[in-house]
Amino acid sequence: MPDLQNWLETNLLKLNLAEEMDYEQGFSRLSYTKEEKQSHHVFQSIAQDLGLEVKADQAGNQWATWHVDDQAPTVAVGSHVDTVKNGGGYDGVAGVLTGLAAIKALKDQNIKPVKNISIICFASEESARFGVSTIGSKAISGLLDKEDIASVKDTDGITIKEAIEDFGLSWETIDQAEVPESKLESFLELHIEQGTQIETNDADIGIVRGVACPIRLQVTATGMANHTGTTPMTRRSDAFTAIAPLITFVEEQANLLNSEQDIPLVATVSTVSLEPNVMNVIPGEVTLGIDIRSVADSLKKELADRIQAYCHKIEEKRSVDIHIHTLVDNPSVFLDPKVVEKLTKVTEKINYKPFHMDSGAGHDVMNMANKWSTGLLFIPCEQGISHHPKEFASINDLAKGTQVIAEYLKEETGEDL
Amino acid sequence: MPDLQNWLETNLLKLNLAEEMDYEQGFSRLSYTKEEKQSHHVFQSIAQDLGLEVKADQAGNQWATWHVDDQAPTVAVGSHVDTVKNGGGYDGVAGVLTGLAAIKALKDQNIKPVKNISIICFASEESARFGVSTIGSKAISGLLDKEDIASVKDTDGITIKEAIEDFGLSWETIDQAEVPESKLESFLELHIEQGTQIETNDADIGIVRGVACPIRLQVTATGMANHTGTTPMTRRSDAFTAIAPLITFVEEQANLLNSEQDIPLVATVSTVSLEPNVMNVIPGEVTLGIDIRSVADSLKKELADRIQAYCHKIEEKRSVDIHIHTLVDNPSVFLDPKVVEKLTKVTEKINYKPFHMDSGAGHDVMNMANKWSTGLLFIPCEQGISHHPKEFASINDLAKGTQVIAEYLKEETGEDL
Repeated sequence: MPDLQNWLETNLLKLNLAEEMDYEQGFSRLSYTKEEKQSHHVFQSIAQDLGLEVKADQAGNQWATWHVDDQAPTVAVGSHVDTVKNGGGYDGVAGVLTGLAAIKALKDQNIKPVKNISIICFASEESARFGVSTIGSKAISGLLDKEDIASVKDTDGITIKEAIEDFGLSWETIDQAEVPESKLESFLELHIEQGTQIETNDADIGIVRGVACPIRLQVTATGMANHTGTTPMTRRSDAFTAIAPLITFVEEQANLLNSEQDIPLVATVSTVSLEPNVMNVIPGEVTLGIDIRSVADSLKKELADRIQAYCHKIEEKRSVDIHIHTLVDNPSVFLDPKVVEKLTKVTEKINYKPFHMDSGAGHDVMNMANKWSTGLLFIPCEQGISHHPKEFASINDLAKGTQVIAEYLKEETGEDL
Repeated sequence: MPDLQNWLETNLLKLNLAEEMDYEQGFSRLSYTKEEKQSHHVFQSIAQDLGLEVKADQAGNQWATWHVDDQAPTVAVGSHVDTVKNGGGYDGVAGVLTGLAAIKALKDQNIKPVKNISIICFASEESARFGVSTIGSKAISGLLDKEDIASVKDTDGITIKEAIEDFGLSWETIDQAEVPESKLESFLELHIEQGTQIETNDADIGIVRGVACPIRLQVTATGMANHTGTTPMTRRSDAFTAIAPLITFVEEQANLLNSEQDIPLVATVSTVSLEPNVMNVIPGEVTLGIDIRSVADSLKKELADRIQAYCHKIEEKRSVDIHIHTLVDNPSVFLDPKVVEKLTKVTEKINYKPFHMDSGAGHDVMNMANKWSTGLLFIPCEQGISHHPKEFASINDLAKGTQVIAEYLKEETGEDL
């Protein structure tokens, strides 16, 4: 496999617009920025070198297709190349890269598929810029609610609509990227695990059964801003000291729920904004963002309920008003058991050990699962670190993932099926 | 006094660049911005109408002088007109306005002072923009450490040096605003109380003995950023959940210290910054800003020590590193007891009830006290609310303050002294 490994190594750097993978600041290719576009251009160029037809749709998704027959169905594989701020170079890229590499492997083996194969590079998977994730795959799956997100802004005050127009697309036509159900037969995504279960279970490849979609809450506590030096401790309505115990509570309750039953739940107070956030003014308003995930939707709901009850208690004890806004509440997504079975079979066939698991992170495949038969493969990443400059997956694991995809595509698009 | 009250009402609006005082968003005239400059222009115009000579110094302070004799000493009065973001229209303005109004009162009474009188409108008192306060009065008093602040930036990335140059000043010469000790005889500031002690004690005017200067700490906890969905609760180094109990601890310990002895102490966790502060990433780094004040310097030190010890405990229990940086540690300032006595005498002479107190907030007078004999007067403000759009002082209380200043100036600059 040295040829495949070299190819992966070279094109991993290219898709990351990088000379090496080890940057202290990591990679920043936020949604619908020129950095994401540059990486899309690299995708186009690699795909064209493999002899694929490349086109972009109205949402900025890139489709690279091995087109064999107008009448034949299309089997799709893909992921994304955008990143969080100071993120890693594998989240997303791994799936796009191994998809393209699998095409190379099939071509090197002189395989002649009887179905079309598309490698999709989805636009704007990460929510880091606008708080809205998987925009490209939502558009393809017909799940994009334009009205709902039009006025969402990034931290520079640029709306998602403006960003999309700056990207060279038209806001008016973005939802025309929707693909009819009949056009695709199935969709497969490969992603880094962003956890350590594959390694812990001494396996090679993770085969995902369910994706834990989040409940996201925005909790706003409103007290009264006042001068820090002249307002006695007894006459304050400090929104920050009032809400601070909730940060501890969320962690405690997540740990408690995990100790009480077997299905894992994770919960994080991941964002905060303080008004006015200056040294000599008591915080008058605090907003916390809370992210809760589990494949068991009832567990997420249970924690959200406990958070609400705890906020009521705070309101009773302290002179603050608390408002909870549910930003996101998506039920968990389950992948097609038949695809899970097929992936298991091909993984074992080429002598790798599969591990069946759930995903704590959302991916483009969640949207695709709404319309098509789908599968999700994980490859290990070091220490489970992700969304961080230290994110790392080995070329060896990328090659294993490529082999599984190639083998799967052979089975799915070969003549004997 | 209807004439004085009308004058105060009219010029209060003018200095606030406003048609009315009741704006939901309050007033925003941050340090060294065009809004501060506009208000300085109004100050110049009012002073000139009163027949005063107006000049600006190298730090942007405005000096309006009733010049009677080159050989005579100068008695000064003043405050500032800059504000915090969405602040009130009385913090600072009250002192500048009543200083000018006192000149009007003396002139209306045909008083002929034998000393010069200057009303100073100090530049950039508030720390809201750069985290550095009382820049103008520091320059006058020779306390400005240019090296120390040159690279400080506002939230738009503009350095204090750039802001000062944009304001029309030269960074090179800003410290030449220093005034020799011999040039001034004394300095008096009037300010709104920003508390409720005058009212609680059924008095008219607060006469301040000491100013509680802050200790300000910057506490940074460093953990490890990671994906919120895929990192089990047991494998996290969440900097926010690690440091959150400190927010509660600071409030608890301030209350405890207040219950143990009589000198008040206040402490506030007033700022927070989270990295990366996005919904799907566990906080990797949190920085809290803590403001501690008391006229008893040993009490401030005691709380700072307890905070440090508590942070060590957190480090022992959680996988985070905590670094504490002392931003500010200024000893409390005591005003001239002779001036306190003179202010008490004149207040009682015109049949107002004085109340002797300490100040929890820093003011320009702190710097002036370093070099000259100084006094600080407070007038009541509604519910003690300050640094907030609802900040309010009555015209009646502004008029009382004006009368006390005028009476003091008569005594200090009259022939019989």
